[in-house]
Amino acid sequence: MDILIVGSVALDDVKTPAGQVKNALGGSATYASLAASYFARPGVVGVVGRDFSEDHVVLLQKNGVDLAGLEKSEGETFHWAGRYEGDMSSAITEDTRLNVFADFDPKIPDSGARAPFVFLANIDPVLQARVLDKIRDPRFVLLDTMNLWIETKREALLDVLRRVDMVVVNDAEARQLSGESNLMRAAQWIRRQGPRGVALKKGEHGALIFWEDTLGVIPAFPLDQVQDPTGAGDTFAGGLIGSLAQSGRLDAENLRSSAAVGAVMAAFTVEAFSVGRLAKLTSAEIQERYARLRDLIQLRTFAWKLSRA
Amino acid sequence: MDILIVGSVALDDVKTPAGQVKNALGGSATYASLAASYFARPGVVGVVGRDFSEDHVVLLQKNGVDLAGLEKSEGETFHWAGRYEGDMSSAITEDTRLNVFADFDPKIPDSGARAPFVFLANIDPVLQARVLDKIRDPRFVLLDTMNLWIETKREALLDVLRRVDMVVVNDAEARQLSGESNLMRAAQWIRRQGPRGVALKKGEHGALIFWEDTLGVIPAFPLDQVQDPTGAGDTFAGGLIGSLAQSGRLDAENLRSSAAVGAVMAAFTVEAFSVGRLAKLTSAEIQERYARLRDLIQLRTFAWKLSRA
Repeated sequence: MDILIVGSVALDDVKTPAGQVKNALGGSATYASLAASYFARPGVVGVVGRDFSEDHVVLLQKNGVDLAGLEKSEGETFHWAGRYEGDMSSAITEDTRLNVFADFDPKIPDSGARAPFVFLANIDPVLQARVLDKIRDPRFVLLDTMNLWIETKREALLDVLRRVDMVVVNDAEARQLSGESNLMRAAQWIRRQGPRGVALKKGEHGALIFWEDTLGVIPAFPLDQVQDPTGAGDTFAGGLIGSLAQSGRLDAENLRSSAAVGAVMAAFTVEAFSVGRLAKLTSAEIQERYARLRDLIQLRTFAWKLSRA
Repeated sequence: MDILIVGSVALDDVKTPAGQVKNALGGSATYASLAASYFARPGVVGVVGRDFSEDHVVLLQKNGVDLAGLEKSEGETFHWAGRYEGDMSSAITEDTRLNVFADFDPKIPDSGARAPFVFLANIDPVLQARVLDKIRDPRFVLLDTMNLWIETKREALLDVLRRVDMVVVNDAEARQLSGESNLMRAAQWIRRQGPRGVALKKGEHGALIFWEDTLGVIPAFPLDQVQDPTGAGDTFAGGLIGSLAQSGRLDAENLRSSAAVGAVMAAFTVEAFSVGRLAKLTSAEIQERYARLRDLIQLRTFAWKLSRA
């Protein structure tokens, strides 16, 4: 296992202008591990209930996701129901049933405790800290969070922030956490708490990647058909850490290009409901889309004559 | 005159979290012409009142803006008062007094009627059409508009759209005009009405540049200090058409790189109130910022091994 991913494995009901699904495979660890699986060997630590279909297990395993850390518990799987409207820029939650996830206590298998790369997906920061206690000397830890923890467990969140290498947050979370409305200042504030890097997600507008004193601007891959935005952020994080883990190089150029891989993978996720597209990609599709993203932002060198001194 | 710019010359009261100004030089033609003036020879067609200070005239002329088409009329100059809050992503209008602008009837000087490049800034589409009637065979016409005209003069706007080369709109306007919530589809809808190109502005998130069958993604230049966003969109358009006019090449690469120049110029505008920064740039500042923007988006070529066929 190259990458330990701790987070939710869920069954989702999702409704968008493009259609709807019920009890579809979802959850942060699901999206992140599938995205990472194209680049490295991820393993999931999570919990599911008795209702979690063997088909989902097979799909994850076929994609190379190590499920040694996926606990099967009495009760039902974490279930989220939500919908998206208009430009689908934000989810409207209709129902959240934590079920077996309510008492989730991450158990890290030996192979996971030795993983050099770790993604702590969005769970209670107290649990995130407990996971870190069990891991020996990881090379790179990426941490996600959400508005709920920023509001209700701010101190625990700031404590765990100090122990990770990079934080992934969206624009609203960055503003809420830092109290800064300007995104550059918000990211700088987060970096001052301890992490070497911040990946600031802006949905369909891409991401800003701060790593030590450097900055990278990553556009989203533009799409004219979006079916379901669920999991885009987790896919981005999974693609980022997956491509990072392959070379293991923690320099600004590799961080930025890995974030672009994350953006490319997220663009596949939103083209179908659940993991319908993410779980079935070819190498050629990923390579082509990365090359296309790179081409979309090419600028020529400055060759204008200016009328001032 | 290389570029004829028809739009407002205004006096603005603006309040932002960074401070406030009263009766400061503003207006779409002001910002656009100053931005263009670093690259080409723009001329303004507009109207001001008796209260328009000679200092403003001198400032524009010193920057190489041709004011042969700036009419001085009885009455007061167009006056806008507004404020920005929080992330300053949208203006809250407090007062609009059209004054002499209410009866604006663009009179095009001979030099303007022969200008190869034309920017029809945001005015009534009926007036925009009247300007086009008076111009002989321009090479490139760029058109801006706003929600007011989309709501109240939709047919006149669609008529004039068909006669221009490129339309510049922000994301909300593109959605409103097209009825499409997806920005790619919104831009494609606008292109089907006639123009060869669409510059879709996304504020602090940059722009998408559609030109014939090509697409370019332009990031905004990230800033950690914004004083006043007023005029950013007009500056973007002015920088775009200014840099385009210099070489006169209407190919996708030049369109895209010129849009990046527009983004760079807009980033200067928002760093100060009114035209405090835009009117006082050096060549080195513009070149450096363009080079920095180009650097911020560099991605390495795809060099990952993928675990799938």
